[in-house]
Amino acid sequence: MTTLSEVRNTGWLAVVGLGPGNADWLVPEARDVLLRATDIVGYRTYVDLVPPELRGSAALHSSDNGEELGRARHALELVSSGRRVALVSSGDPGVFAMAAALFEAQSAETAPAVWREVDVQVVPGITAALATAARAGAPLGHDWCCISLSDNLKPWAIVERRLVAALGADFVLALYNPVSRRRPTQLAEAFRLIRRHRAPTTPVVLGRDVGRPDEHVRVVPLSDVDLDACDMRTVILVGSSTTRLGAGGRVFTPRWYPAD
Amino acid sequence: MTTLSEVRNTGWLAVVGLGPGNADWLVPEARDVLLRATDIVGYRTYVDLVPPELRGSAALHSSDNGEELGRARHALELVSSGRRVALVSSGDPGVFAMAAALFEAQSAETAPAVWREVDVQVVPGITAALATAARAGAPLGHDWCCISLSDNLKPWAIVERRLVAALGADFVLALYNPVSRRRPTQLAEAFRLIRRHRAPTTPVVLGRDVGRPDEHVRVVPLSDVDLDACDMRTVILVGSSTTRLGAGGRVFTPRWYPAD
Repeated sequence: MTTLSEVRNTGWLAVVGLGPGNADWLVPEARDVLLRATDIVGYRTYVDLVPPELRGSAALHSSDNGEELGRARHALELVSSGRRVALVSSGDPGVFAMAAALFEAQSAETAPAVWREVDVQVVPGITAALATAARAGAPLGHDWCCISLSDNLKPWAIVERRLVAALGADFVLALYNPVSRRRPTQLAEAFRLIRRHRAPTTPVVLGRDVGRPDEHVRVVPLSDVDLDACDMRTVILVGSSTTRLGAGGRVFTPRWYPAD
Repeated sequence: MTTLSEVRNTGWLAVVGLGPGNADWLVPEARDVLLRATDIVGYRTYVDLVPPELRGSAALHSSDNGEELGRARHALELVSSGRRVALVSSGDPGVFAMAAALFEAQSAETAPAVWREVDVQVVPGITAALATAARAGAPLGHDWCCISLSDNLKPWAIVERRLVAALGADFVLALYNPVSRRRPTQLAEAFRLIRRHRAPTTPVVLGRDVGRPDEHVRVVPLSDVDLDACDMRTVILVGSSTTRLGAGGRVFTPRWYPAD
């Protein structure tokens, strides 16, 4: 049986943000943690994102999408047996990713005492909104919101309520998880709301696989957004009333806001 | 006189996010750009954040806070004379930082043609909200907003409107620039609104100088927040109705949201 002192002395657990996946945008702390890990746990696509030279001889534990809590529990079991565990997410692990699932599993009433003692380290990463914004210019230069359009884990009414509030208060929007095979109609519903609150000329940025070899970033006016071109790997940034196109087609939201 | 082809062949301009300032959280692309720059331009505090080994023999151009547009113009002048320029910000340069000012200067009607031709590179960084969240747990695990409380460049009425909208729609809040000597009362006004919408037990994270040697992170219930302990170097994360304290005092916002 594993004792608490063994856990303290040998095992550790880090929830690691891989950023978009390119080495250029991976923070050194993530590199270091990956190189020292005995076990790398994550959604298959993200485990595959870990550069081979950083995997070393670590055991790879890939699982399917939608199994976040199971993955978190597996990571807690591994660290409880003294392993050095990197639980990986793309982007930042705290933004619509594995860190919340990990703390939920660790804090559950049914969680073993040994899990609760684990001092989890969170290694931040470049989340998709920042990566896409960097390629497009500075669309997030003023107040902005991060909203997941997925209603797998929340009622669609909450998504709508948040969209309406953010649009009404003229935030820039960063929309994650815009569409999936199981949710084909919701992006269109979101854009019906967006078009009600924003001018047709509002700059919209569609970033797909930003920071990866197949990166594709488009800047289009709201009137021309092609929703069929968006999938789960797309992040969508929708400008506020002040967001504009500048030199060279770069999008930016000025730091100032006009008085009424 | 500098020609466009000279600019294209020799000079470049990158707006670089330093992250919080620690080498562990500086992306490799930022390192690389700093090492190749002939000139490093920025607010004095941020130029000082650049690790000496990355400054090399670059000329340092420090200026005071509040001179963002002047700094941006200076960077554009330098690149237009063929220099390799790193314009530095802490955190992510696109979030309440220099990238928007740069594109504003570059896109101004009065901007010289040679400025408009500069192909600006934006290097993303770990913004303070992500850094503070990583230390606290996963408070940004669900929909969240980034709001600057500074009314130097926007009317306070806009700040209030956005706070009320974000609170009403139950977003987690990340508050930047909470207070300054010129704006001593606004944080208290913001918290009056927050206390009207959130329970006294709501977890609040106060992160000061996160990622720097004097890092100080506190997690307190909303009822116990000491506003006098906040300054311009503090980022404040305010939980939603679902944000909770978990094992080991870590704060997280679950990925799910209850149906009504």
